[in-house]
Amino acid sequence: MLALVHLSTALLTDHYELTMVDAARRAGTADRGSVFELFTRRLSGARRYGVVAGTGRLLEAIDRFRFTDTELDFLKSRGVVSDGTLDWLANFRFSGNIWGYPEGEVFFPGSPLINVEASFAEGVLFETLALSVLNYDSAVATAASRMSHAAKGKPLAEMGSRRTSEYSAVAAARAAYIAGFSATSNLEAGRSYGIPTMGTAAHSFMLLHDSERAAFEAQIATLGTDTTLLVDTYDIEQGVRTAIEVAGTGLGAVRIDSGDLPVVVARVRQLLDELGATQTRITVTNDLDEHTVAVLAASPVDSFGVGTSVVVGSGSPTMGMVYKLVAHEDEQGNWVSVAKKSADKVSVGGRKRVYRRLNSRGIAVAESIVVNDGSHSSVSQSKQPSTKTAEGREILVPLVTNGEVLLDHTGTAGIAAARERHRQRVAELPAVAMSLTRGDPAIPTEYV
Amino acid sequence: MLALVHLSTALLTDHYELTMVDAARRAGTADRGSVFELFTRRLSGARRYGVVAGTGRLLEAIDRFRFTDTELDFLKSRGVVSDGTLDWLANFRFSGNIWGYPEGEVFFPGSPLINVEASFAEGVLFETLALSVLNYDSAVATAASRMSHAAKGKPLAEMGSRRTSEYSAVAAARAAYIAGFSATSNLEAGRSYGIPTMGTAAHSFMLLHDSERAAFEAQIATLGTDTTLLVDTYDIEQGVRTAIEVAGTGLGAVRIDSGDLPVVVARVRQLLDELGATQTRITVTNDLDEHTVAVLAASPVDSFGVGTSVVVGSGSPTMGMVYKLVAHEDEQGNWVSVAKKSADKVSVGGRKRVYRRLNSRGIAVAESIVVNDGSHSSVSQSKQPSTKTAEGREILVPLVTNGEVLLDHTGTAGIAAARERHRQRVAELPAVAMSLTRGDPAIPTEYV
Repeated sequence: MLALVHLSTALLTDHYELTMVDAARRAGTADRGSVFELFTRRLSGARRYGVVAGTGRLLEAIDRFRFTDTELDFLKSRGVVSDGTLDWLANFRFSGNIWGYPEGEVFFPGSPLINVEASFAEGVLFETLALSVLNYDSAVATAASRMSHAAKGKPLAEMGSRRTSEYSAVAAARAAYIAGFSATSNLEAGRSYGIPTMGTAAHSFMLLHDSERAAFEAQIATLGTDTTLLVDTYDIEQGVRTAIEVAGTGLGAVRIDSGDLPVVVARVRQLLDELGATQTRITVTNDLDEHTVAVLAASPVDSFGVGTSVVVGSGSPTMGMVYKLVAHEDEQGNWVSVAKKSADKVSVGGRKRVYRRLNSRGIAVAESIVVNDGSHSSVSQSKQPSTKTAEGREILVPLVTNGEVLLDHTGTAGIAAARERHRQRVAELPAVAMSLTRGDPAIPTEYV
Repeated sequence: MLALVHLSTALLTDHYELTMVDAARRAGTADRGSVFELFTRRLSGARRYGVVAGTGRLLEAIDRFRFTDTELDFLKSRGVVSDGTLDWLANFRFSGNIWGYPEGEVFFPGSPLINVEASFAEGVLFETLALSVLNYDSAVATAASRMSHAAKGKPLAEMGSRRTSEYSAVAAARAAYIAGFSATSNLEAGRSYGIPTMGTAAHSFMLLHDSERAAFEAQIATLGTDTTLLVDTYDIEQGVRTAIEVAGTGLGAVRIDSGDLPVVVARVRQLLDELGATQTRITVTNDLDEHTVAVLAASPVDSFGVGTSVVVGSGSPTMGMVYKLVAHEDEQGNWVSVAKKSADKVSVGGRKRVYRRLNSRGIAVAESIVVNDGSHSSVSQSKQPSTKTAEGREILVPLVTNGEVLLDHTGTAGIAAARERHRQRVAELPAVAMSLTRGDPAIPTEYV
């Protein structure tokens, strides 16, 4: 986010990441080569697929992950780590490699969305931040992707800023845009990420004026007749009539924010047509989610404004992603695969490569994860993005190389690429992926 | 948040707030005296009470609500508002009054949590920001309050940073602390808000080392024997035995993050006692919510770490609060009460005063809302905080007076006061308020 670009992100992390660095430094294990993996064991809400979002934001946050004097002073005052570790943190610059699913890509249980190869100390520092960004942004994008499909090509605007915290709102606008929304109400998302913003007036504006007619006149005088008039403050039918009287039949759109929408929308369309406003569009904004959007997509609605449900992931406000050590060097410098053994939280150790297997018609049939033994040579994922091989399309792409963030995944160019990637990858999924019911992932994850 | 204190919050808002200002200025209605009210029509999740949180953060954000050149340049480049309104925004300083429920207070449907008295243009500008902050922070505090009660006095730590976006994580730590949690894992919350932070080590630290014993030794060498050792990476019973062998019977605590907790906890307590570690505490951290905390409170658990559920409001990630114009001056300068008339979204117009009625034993029996006609004199809420009268305790307190933020509601002092206020107000609620089942609000809201 441009406005925050000069601020350190280093304390947006859990206390224990730093105590682990401190203890590992003292034990002489902090420099052991390590591979951390960010993945989810299941798709929240029994969705059919997940959508990766936040990758670009994470890379921008990593670039600002610096322990400056103010961070160090705080850590010292609280005695979080030893003085030696404070010095190490002061000089910290990430020097490792990160591969990952590119933003906008779809994913499934076990997909290694982010792979961090670095010393233990460098890799563990990003755990909390990486999870915060990916868990939230991907939850929003996954919900937004379902809504985008449900809308059957009609435009969706994200309008949920007020129902999530003020900076989450900006991230949510970005994630929804990547997953197919066309605009947002959030101005900071416009400034920071170049996303189109939109909005005209709320009920308060209607109520401020001495009549609905006066409010419409005031709005049109400033925003022109191509604006969207909110017609449900008093009586909707009268509101529509007044709107056309004031604006003429060239009125851009009417917005409906209450009532039994399929019925109301049909009546408003009929009325607009009767009044000669055949080109005036109808937009609806009443607590929509993917299910109500799907129902309304068949009605004469022209566009949707979605608020609460998209910014809270439509019932799944976090993806449940975890960040686990999957391989490291031992005392002799040999690589070993590792995983927690507890029965209810199984992880698959080792480094991975991932291929999306496609059938002859180009439809995805499996997420194929090749597990290696953890040895250094086996991590040589392609440095080329998304190459196709006999095994399918290789998914992991480099995001950070020797500490250098690959900038084509960041900023507005990264967002545009992610939005297009999302469109293409969703189109490759089998039809069952578009089901809004709870169920199994659209394609199986297979370990090779 | 200290680290963000110099940044403008003015674009953390919806596009339409600015187009409304623009249109009202042109129509000559922007300066009409107005009262906006922030409230919720129902308690999300059929909770028995809500907890106000975010008020202090909102006041800090209002203080940073400034249109500087970078904000104005963006608005101009997008043509959001006219040049005249850009000039008005450049000079914008809030000059009105804000009353509200003080932070930590409990609330019910219809409670006027924030009341903004200002010109329409000044009041409407804060709509999105006020809702973002209050909706999220209060959702977290409301969930956290239930958990605090369920824990029956055992300490709770907030550890959910990784399951919500990176700045929401900081707000969540603050809200949970106000609602009775004792600490957080989030370092930025420690720096910005003075909240105690804590944490020791994750599974990755255990797996990094060549044996569980080596990991425990490494941790104790740096953090001392009073630390908390994570004992469930391999076999829990063996983990406990190794922990006590390495640390001795003076080990601070063991942490359990998996398994069937009531059973595992009982076995671990028994084992610790057998090993002579009778003072070693047990902390649990496995996907807890208020229900599992309530079950475990009766077991020999000494403290809880709560992650996902608290930061996503335990099933209700937003409070559904709205911000409505309830009274304004008309063309003649007469005050009129207003409310949207649509059948499914009822609001009560007019200015309000609120009393919590208490019975002779000091138990709350009703939220009594006195609705006035909107005339200027009727808004003269007490300038004294929380006075008791014959009608009960008056709830609304001044937060901003003539544009000046009352600083005792902000910063760490504000947080400490809110935490104490929360403790007192929850203690006044009838017993039914502590039920974790879905149901009606603990006390009725009555309009006088």
